[in-house]
Amino acid sequence: MKFTKLLTIGAGLALLPGLAMAQEAAAPSFDEVGPYIMTTLLFLVGGFLVFWMAAGFAMLEAGLVRSKNVTMQLTKNIALFSIATVMYWLVGFNLMYPGDGWLAPGWLGPLFSPTVLEPVGLDAADAALDYASVASDFFFQLMFCATTASIVSGTLAERIKIWPFLIFVVVLTGFIYPIEASWQWGGGWLSEMGFSDFAGSTLVHAAGGFAALAGAIVLGARIGKYKDGMVVPMPGSNLALATLGTFILWLGWFGFNGGSQLAAGTVGDITDVGRIFANTNMAAAAGAIAALIMTTVLYQKPDLTMILNGALAGLVSITAGPLDPSLFGALWIGAVGGIIVVLAVPMLDSLKIDDVVGAIPVHLLAGFWGTMVVPVYTEGTSFVTQFIGFAAIGLFVFVTSLVVWFILKGVMGLRVTEEAEIDGLDMSELGMEAYPEFSKG
Amino acid sequence: MKFTKLLTIGAGLALLPGLAMAQEAAAPSFDEVGPYIMTTLLFLVGGFLVFWMAAGFAMLEAGLVRSKNVTMQLTKNIALFSIATVMYWLVGFNLMYPGDGWLAPGWLGPLFSPTVLEPVGLDAADAALDYASVASDFFFQLMFCATTASIVSGTLAERIKIWPFLIFVVVLTGFIYPIEASWQWGGGWLSEMGFSDFAGSTLVHAAGGFAALAGAIVLGARIGKYKDGMVVPMPGSNLALATLGTFILWLGWFGFNGGSQLAAGTVGDITDVGRIFANTNMAAAAGAIAALIMTTVLYQKPDLTMILNGALAGLVSITAGPLDPSLFGALWIGAVGGIIVVLAVPMLDSLKIDDVVGAIPVHLLAGFWGTMVVPVYTEGTSFVTQFIGFAAIGLFVFVTSLVVWFILKGVMGLRVTEEAEIDGLDMSELGMEAYPEFSKG
Amino acid sequence: MKFTKLLTIGAGLALLPGLAMAQEAAAPSFDEVGPYIMTTLLFLVGGFLVFWMAAGFAMLEAGLVRSKNVTMQLTKNIALFSIATVMYWLVGFNLMYPGDGWLAPGWLGPLFSPTVLEPVGLDAADAALDYASVASDFFFQLMFCATTASIVSGTLAERIKIWPFLIFVVVLTGFIYPIEASWQWGGGWLSEMGFSDFAGSTLVHAAGGFAALAGAIVLGARIGKYKDGMVVPMPGSNLALATLGTFILWLGWFGFNGGSQLAAGTVGDITDVGRIFANTNMAAAAGAIAALIMTTVLYQKPDLTMILNGALAGLVSITAGPLDPSLFGALWIGAVGGIIVVLAVPMLDSLKIDDVVGAIPVHLLAGFWGTMVVPVYTEGTSFVTQFIGFAAIGLFVFVTSLVVWFILKGVMGLRVTEEAEIDGLDMSELGMEAYPEFSKG
Repeated sequence: MKFTKLLTIGAGLALLPGLAMAQEAAAPSFDEVGPYIMTTLLFLVGGFLVFWMAAGFAMLEAGLVRSKNVTMQLTKNIALFSIATVMYWLVGFNLMYPGDGWLAPGWLGPLFSPTVLEPVGLDAADAALDYASVASDFFFQLMFCATTASIVSGTLAERIKIWPFLIFVVVLTGFIYPIEASWQWGGGWLSEMGFSDFAGSTLVHAAGGFAALAGAIVLGARIGKYKDGMVVPMPGSNLALATLGTFILWLGWFGFNGGSQLAAGTVGDITDVGRIFANTNMAAAAGAIAALIMTTVLYQKPDLTMILNGALAGLVSITAGPLDPSLFGALWIGAVGGIIVVLAVPMLDSLKIDDVVGAIPVHLLAGFWGTMVVPVYTEGTSFVTQFIGFAAIGLFVFVTSLVVWFILKGVMGLRVTEEAEIDGLDMSELGMEAYPEFSKG
Repeated sequence: MKFTKLLTIGAGLALLPGLAMAQEAAAPSFDEVGPYIMTTLLFLVGGFLVFWMAAGFAMLEAGLVRSKNVTMQLTKNIALFSIATVMYWLVGFNLMYPGDGWLAPGWLGPLFSPTVLEPVGLDAADAALDYASVASDFFFQLMFCATTASIVSGTLAERIKIWPFLIFVVVLTGFIYPIEASWQWGGGWLSEMGFSDFAGSTLVHAAGGFAALAGAIVLGARIGKYKDGMVVPMPGSNLALATLGTFILWLGWFGFNGGSQLAAGTVGDITDVGRIFANTNMAAAAGAIAALIMTTVLYQKPDLTMILNGALAGLVSITAGPLDPSLFGALWIGAVGGIIVVLAVPMLDSLKIDDVVGAIPVHLLAGFWGTMVVPVYTEGTSFVTQFIGFAAIGLFVFVTSLVVWFILKGVMGLRVTEEAEIDGLDMSELGMEAYPEFSKG
Repeated sequence: MKFTKLLTIGAGLALLPGLAMAQEAAAPSFDEVGPYIMTTLLFLVGGFLVFWMAAGFAMLEAGLVRSKNVTMQLTKNIALFSIATVMYWLVGFNLMYPGDGWLAPGWLGPLFSPTVLEPVGLDAADAALDYASVASDFFFQLMFCATTASIVSGTLAERIKIWPFLIFVVVLTGFIYPIEASWQWGGGWLSEMGFSDFAGSTLVHAAGGFAALAGAIVLGARIGKYKDGMVVPMPGSNLALATLGTFILWLGWFGFNGGSQLAAGTVGDITDVGRIFANTNMAAAAGAIAALIMTTVLYQKPDLTMILNGALAGLVSITAGPLDPSLFGALWIGAVGGIIVVLAVPMLDSLKIDDVVGAIPVHLLAGFWGTMVVPVYTEGTSFVTQFIGFAAIGLFVFVTSLVVWFILKGVMGLRVTEEAEIDGLDMSELGMEAYPEFSKG
């Protein structure tokens, strides 16, 4: 056998021979710990896939804004993910999963309790053998929190100042998301009522969409977007990037939905993860095809950005219940999601709500659809409860977001100056172009 | 222990206490189900890696076409993957793996039998404990079907209309691929004869190449490609994207070949997966280096697009037998693949077969090479059988594809108008540019 | 049950019925082999994630050079990875892990001993059941070797000739890296002394940085970079690509650090991998935020390229000890890394060391920081030993690299001609532009 890093680490352990020996004596068989290991692995693999969605949002949004705002959009995306990481550690995780520490049982967890991981080299006797490592769970859940914030950045692109946006992200990822998510995933009042949202059509996607909607209303439309009753198209600057972003999101979604099985150590659980993967993929495909057909029918030409958003809407639609439907169920649920997007984008424009990347149709409306369709396939759920859950979370996120946006507007202003917006945020706010050498046509 | 999503789900289960208890009583030890869980996991991880290859093809092709055709190429790629998903569910999976349901034993499976997954929360007693979850297997195999279609889209770029292309994809992914693949992987006549194609040098790559070749012949070359006996270079518009696409494909190939071990629950199997990863990587590296050296020798300058295709040819070459060769074997097999590509690209041009991205040399010719070299390292295989398998599949795919292409040509026409082709398919067919703001030089 | 590929393979096994039966008789329970399987899986998943970092470096560097040098940068990146694959197989792996085969014990392994993998279908009785498959270990370790070379290419971009660069890569990946890494991870003198470098802040990142520094000194700055005592900014041509590259690296780093646990088959080990994932993510986030704040304070505007490098510096900083710190520890360690980069980039410029992508601050300086901070959280380590380890490896890599660079300069010249540099390496050296259709402004 070759020398390996193991040896080096072994040397370190040799300093504690008694402890090491004691641990070995107590070591349980693999048979006993296998499920814990598998579920922990599910969280780690699922978690890095959902992490990857942060890159997907960055690419999607960078591709859908105009080239003069690309650097800004990239900056916001990497910054918001980083802020979500810190806030979810500092506040969010324990606020969302309060265990016995509710301030207001079922409604509000502890307001400040930073996450503490297990000790290094955790002994099996101290582990939650019927679940998974806290560290892996934290890692996985953090990514959902960050996703919620990613959704907001696209809608508000091309006109919002970076600092108020990032301060909003602090509040959203530290407080708004963890509180509403605790109502369901933390064992709060919605879960007790029987609300069902497997991986977050409402808790993550619609929540992000409501926060974005509040922001879009307070912020207003981009200059020139709605002119003399007309909607002026402002095409994305790089559809290859936008398509890459969509594929990244699609890939990451296998972790998003599959990991939300929260267990992988039995035949039933790992088989369910397989079902979820197959259904998630089917819903995305159906959403894309529906948008392809719909845009061809409505506009005589397939529309790539709609197809991309159709795939994403399919994914959002299946997220509330990716396990129970058959493949055919996933198909029609996803397809309706794609149709919703194609119809909703012009509808939003008619309301003069300027959503640069279509995040509100994709995440809020398809999230609503996905949440409401759960009872068709999932026993023990009801349309009324699903609606209550969606409405409660929607109301909470929308109102709190609206308040935060108004405060930020009052205190520091949300929008860049008119001149800065016309020149592009990259030069005016950051002094750095994304594509400095390419002439703009 | 903290409250988690588990609790929420637990609440749902509490509705069925008797059932849950019965299941627990019957629950087998992890020892018994570990191999099933590991192989299912292999399919899920392998499957998402091969899914990622869809993004790789999209980026590779978007980078290698001219900027006026990028939106179209992206649209085709996301649409073809979506169609493959639906067709493989609706027809392909059971047509390819007919079990006892052959229409013509060894030759043709059931023509219409949509895929049905296992029930939710599968009981271990009902699981194929010596294999893996059907859902995970379906998910994994679906990705191979989609890959076959991805290969076609690159060759025919920049001149084919979108709808006939997508209809061809329907036929290819629903019928042509599943039928030929059933001959080997479905337990059909080729597998009984002793043909060996571990992960699909012939079944996937050459098959895709033959379908592309048939299309290229029927479709004809791009306007201006062959002029006065000269080959006019039409350089790709974005080599960064093309390189990204190649890296994505390289990454995805670990799932493609590694997952094709179809088992990960024993020492022998997981170690074999390790061998496959190492060999796959080596063949890709050798293909790239071979193309680097060859283009420097032949043209005095390294040629990046050839290096990218060299890496891909190395990957295709090792795909028929990634397990048995030594690392040195993988090296020379991959290197010859890279050399083939460098020599074959001008050869194809001399035949006036216009293959926009070089998919025929990479997938068909290197696929042939990879298939024929199997007997050097794999016992129980013969050159004759390998040739018969390659020829049979090649003939079947080429002829059926040719028929479909001719029908499509007759019924709806394959090519865009001359004007549309010169203007670029993005504006003429889709009305949407990929890079609308960058001036074209 | 359906027919599957398994059957086909089963047919092959049927040729060796006696052997197969003997193996089955001896087959150990999953309980006994589970840890081996899990650790092998960790290496395979960790390995493909670190492979993905090769794409990350390619995108980061392609985005940070000017558009006239993008094809060259892409070519170098795919070529260097391929060369690393071959050299690490041919020489590096056994030189780095000499086992009992040291030429000079603790200092120098066998100079030529190509890697041999286990036989196909390894019997459990022949496996290192307390570790993992050699093939998976080789695959994983190879990626670290390639990473070291990736670091060098960015610093020397836009002026170095391709062939001397690639010859340097041969020496670095075949000899320099394996020798210094053997001192620690191969069980050599540094590991015996108690040096601690969990995943390679020194062994990989600082080593790559030192090789790059030596090259930058020998090569000199780009024409026009330092003019009349001023530093002339040469902005990257595609910040979307650079951001994508950073996200890819961030993702890959979970494999880089997590896989370096080198074990995943016990509760303690998989939980540790979870800790490492969480800490790695936190350090990256903190580095990005630190750079965001620092650039805003220093220059009044957030600087995206600094934020990207800040995230990377956070990652490098935590790499020497990603397991032992608390999340708060990871935060401040990463944040200091980000601050170091912001301060060091202008410092390097004042020394007229032209580092195109900032690889020396990110990898060498943050690597130093990460190495020196280990004793704060890791028992049994000391600042003195950490410094000795860093200095020894730095000196060795710097001096040997310097010698190789000087020899290459003398024998074949390192720099392209002045004209070629001004025209851009893509046209002058490769005759191929990365973005041939976009007009340059």
